Amino acid sequence: MKIVLDAMGGDRAPAVVVEGAVQAAREYGAEIILVGRQEALEPELAKYDLTGLCLPIVHASEVVGMEEHTMAVKEKKDSSLNVGMKLVLAGQAQALVSAGNSGAVMAAALFNLGRIKGIERPALGTVYPTVRGKCFLLDIGANTDCKPEYLRQFAIMGLAYWERVFGGPNPRVGLVSNGEEEGKGSMLARDAYQLLRQTRLNFVGNVEGKDVPLGLADVAVTDGFTGNVMIKLSEGVAEMLVGFLKEEIKKRPLAMAGAVLARPAFEALRKRLDYSEYGGGPLLGVDGVVIVAHGRSNAYAIKNAVRVAKEAVDRKLVEAIREGVR
Amino acid sequence: MKIVLDAMGGDRAPAVVVEGAVQAAREYGAEIILVGRQEALEPELAKYDLTGLCLPIVHASEVVGMEEHTMAVKEKKDSSLNVGMKLVLAGQAQALVSAGNSGAVMAAALFNLGRIKGIERPALGTVYPTVRGKCFLLDIGANTDCKPEYLRQFAIMGLAYWERVFGGPNPRVGLVSNGEEEGKGSMLARDAYQLLRQTRLNFVGNVEGKDVPLGLADVAVTDGFTGNVMIKLSEGVAEMLVGFLKEEIKKRPLAMAGAVLARPAFEALRKRLDYSEYGGGPLLGVDGVVIVAHGRSNAYAIKNAVRVAKEAVDRKLVEAIREGVR
Repeated sequence: MKIVLDAMGGDRAPAVVVEGAVQAAREYGAEIILVGRQEALEPELAKYDLTGLCLPIVHASEVVGMEEHTMAVKEKKDSSLNVGMKLVLAGQAQALVSAGNSGAVMAAALFNLGRIKGIERPALGTVYPTVRGKCFLLDIGANTDCKPEYLRQFAIMGLAYWERVFGGPNPRVGLVSNGEEEGKGSMLARDAYQLLRQTRLNFVGNVEGKDVPLGLADVAVTDGFTGNVMIKLSEGVAEMLVGFLKEEIKKRPLAMAGAVLARPAFEALRKRLDYSEYGGGPLLGVDGVVIVAHGRSNAYAIKNAVRVAKEAVDRKLVEAIREGVR
Repeated sequence: MKIVLDAMGGDRAPAVVVEGAVQAAREYGAEIILVGRQEALEPELAKYDLTGLCLPIVHASEVVGMEEHTMAVKEKKDSSLNVGMKLVLAGQAQALVSAGNSGAVMAAALFNLGRIKGIERPALGTVYPTVRGKCFLLDIGANTDCKPEYLRQFAIMGLAYWERVFGGPNPRVGLVSNGEEEGKGSMLARDAYQLLRQTRLNFVGNVEGKDVPLGLADVAVTDGFTGNVMIKLSEGVAEMLVGFLKEEIKKRPLAMAGAVLARPAFEALRKRLDYSEYGGGPLLGVDGVVIVAHGRSNAYAIKNAVRVAKEAVDRKLVEAIREGVR
């Protein structure tokens, strides 16, 4: 399998991306095509022993910055994102991974690969940890304003991802809303509810904010504005709670001794919540496998994002969405 | 001061509400008017030593249930909510507190007290704990679909609440969005941004989900759909994290010993996050002081909700909003 890695995308590119690429090539035996400025990538690659690994560089002279407007993708024809997407389009690679500007990744994907027939808007999904395991949440930022029909399509794509990648049949699909009852929700949520109940999905109705971490749905569907606020808020709440607990522990010498003993449990918790374990979220609905990793990705997260891409290719995710939407 | 307590509102009414009323009368020296079915309230009151306390009952024959449609308020003319609001309207009490169905509380307030001139929609606010102290978040559920102008008015009401009740001048007002930059957000958020920057408020721009718990705004404004998802999600995340930590600790005997030593710190954390400390959130924009307590309120939360009502009356909250919106 050949996977394109946007070597220029992410806050710590290209150093960290190349490091992650080397780890992924070693661990998964995949060919990782590094796309970006050759003169920047060669010295990074030279730091590693590449014996037995296949890590070709494909030169791209331009870079779309993390803070640049999405439209920069159209102007910068020779950006790593455009060059990388073209490799996927030409069949020279089966997937693309980027930790770059997620709006730009989506624009480049739409521009070069296009949409799967029947899907009006691509959606960005992510794995959300829950008390029962995990939930696949989408959209987390690709579409800030949605129509009810988009949410129906997101549900179909989420189902395809769950069934193919997590391997469980018939996941419970929930619609994020501000109340459990059928009549609750914004106009968007109420109309989407009516569309979703007419599908053959295992639609469990509305799920409230707390129901997502408590695991009441396997696939949770919402617009990209709400979904984005949800994932970032969860991050903030976790950070706040850990901060509060540290403060309270520091006030108490005995509690401090206790915390030292309990440290391995805290470490395990940290690992369980660490986004880098999940690697990246799929951009669903574009006609190809595209994985968006966190802008702050470290090498470990990049490696895991490559794994996510590999799983999506192996399990024929794009074909599953194509069938689901038919 | 006279405060009306909807004695029939809440999952554990009337027993818990009456218990909270007795505590509040004792602690704050206020007269608490219990509105509800006389035959249900008298035996509850009889459980306490009421020497020196003023806890009159005003009979109301009907109750709007927690799951009933908002419109039940119109049909049940003699419900505790309608009778209570009328006491406030007539000047026989200065505020009303209810742990009932929040949609019904809002409908009863609008129906009986009306809106403050210049406010198109009332909003429900709440105190959100942050690493720096607290944030006043609104709307958390009164309006699932908003116009940009509503959000501008929410900001003015949030400012009034912050300045009068928390006592700090010139709070930082943030708009919840899916990115920090000016151009980010749904159509609603982008348009509200433009309105907010034209006000004299200390508008700090967009705040992302994580910025709220991290304390980047003193007043955070959003629509009632997003705000409701935010508070319930925060609850769920906290519950999930505590659950995870317990699981990880239980796997490790040494960590279990450590957790015993650290217990007082965990207790302090629990208290810091306990909604019942905050009592209730104000329904801002109606022409009177109305406090909505959590449906699951215990007596302690009811007592604190009475405190919140008392503060709003003492500090002339309604007058402050009236001036702010002028």
